[in-house]
Amino acid sequence: MKLYSYFRSSSSYRVRIALALKGIRYEYVPVDISPAVQAQRAVGYGEIHPLRQVPVLEWHDASGREQRLTQSVAILEYLDERWPTPPLLPHEPLERARIREAVEIVNSGIQPLQNSKTLALLRTVGGTEVEECWRREVIEQGLSALESLARANRGAFFSGDMPLLADLFIVPQLYNARRFGIDLAAFPRLLAIEVAALALDAFRLAQPERQPDAPPVEARPPSEAWPRSKS
Amino acid sequence: MKLYSYFRSSSSYRVRIALALKGIRYEYVPVDISPAVQAQRAVGYGEIHPLRQVPVLEWHDASGREQRLTQSVAILEYLDERWPTPPLLPHEPLERARIREAVEIVNSGIQPLQNSKTLALLRTVGGTEVEECWRREVIEQGLSALESLARANRGAFFSGDMPLLADLFIVPQLYNARRFGIDLAAFPRLLAIEVAALALDAFRLAQPERQPDAPPVEARPPSEAWPRSKS
Repeated sequence: MKLYSYFRSSSSYRVRIALALKGIRYEYVPVDISPAVQAQRAVGYGEIHPLRQVPVLEWHDASGREQRLTQSVAILEYLDERWPTPPLLPHEPLERARIREAVEIVNSGIQPLQNSKTLALLRTVGGTEVEECWRREVIEQGLSALESLARANRGAFFSGDMPLLADLFIVPQLYNARRFGIDLAAFPRLLAIEVAALALDAFRLAQPERQPDAPPVEARPPSEAWPRSKS
Repeated sequence: MKLYSYFRSSSSYRVRIALALKGIRYEYVPVDISPAVQAQRAVGYGEIHPLRQVPVLEWHDASGREQRLTQSVAILEYLDERWPTPPLLPHEPLERARIREAVEIVNSGIQPLQNSKTLALLRTVGGTEVEECWRREVIEQGLSALESLARANRGAFFSGDMPLLADLFIVPQLYNARRFGIDLAAFPRLLAIEVAALALDAFRLAQPERQPDAPPVEARPPSEAWPRSKS
């Protein structure tokens, strides 16, 4: 199995966590989607992903046919159906719905509105100030909604004491928010979920700074040069 | 069961189709999210939906407790799990994944980037031309990806001869594209899916112009005054 990924991509980060939680081994294929490189624009990548995004999961099925799957939600639900242990969704329909509700607040409510393409356009037409104001509003509104939902639940994670699909979206979104300098003090429940998550090997192994395409610590600007946790 | 909906909202439209396909009766609660009215900003609506969007599904559970669910994907997966007939997803994990992949191309790849809030911001900071160019690019790119995926499948619908979750996203997105004056000639497979879908009562009943909050035909601007289909 191969994962086309970019270390900083929060959608890739979600899938890396799931693969680690399920204990699925995979080959990491870095795609540098940074504005300076834009490897996704290479001619051949259009065949891997017509929309030229990451992540893409690639594998050979039982009949040896190459399969590629895009869209983190589709990939994650697939992984959970094919490798049900540990489960990423509860059993009861309404409980499953509550997890998917949180997932979509991040997946369609925050991420697309603050990804690099959207922000680049805003910067071009509106300048840095408009871009920052927009990014802050989108992220803070989404995290506020998530914080309320999470507070209504019990447990170390979004719902209960085991990580579920919602946690795979919350942790990368907090990473993104921090990168953008968003003050997270208003979201103590989400921060507690992050602490519980990063106590697990699967979440730590999936962290951006631990990926093969992440620059070495000394090459990063000071705000990102946090020490790798010892584990 | 109550559905908070706006006739033109494509996310509401998806849920209306599912409710009709499953034969679930519901009360329609109109929320006028048009820029001129913005009923979602009313103080009380924040309790219905913290992010002040539509759709919201509301019901009383077996113990009489009021439940509210937001996010169209979460609502649709819930409806499909609670009322499995007719199914909105196939059985086999990879086939399910292919449907969810198409769903997310619309749900996170197109819709959030061309909803009224995003477009209003773009118009404010960049003017009408930037807004139109952005909208066109986002919609055309997404529909192109969907067209390729749909062409790889057989059947009258996105995949096979029965409507599935992907079709519930494609039909409202085509409605949106048309409203915005996008030329759909490059997407013959998607247009054929729309024809097959609108031959079914469930899709027709869910159409924007048939909702109680839709203005009467004569009150609409010419581009939207298409005749209601006789059925």
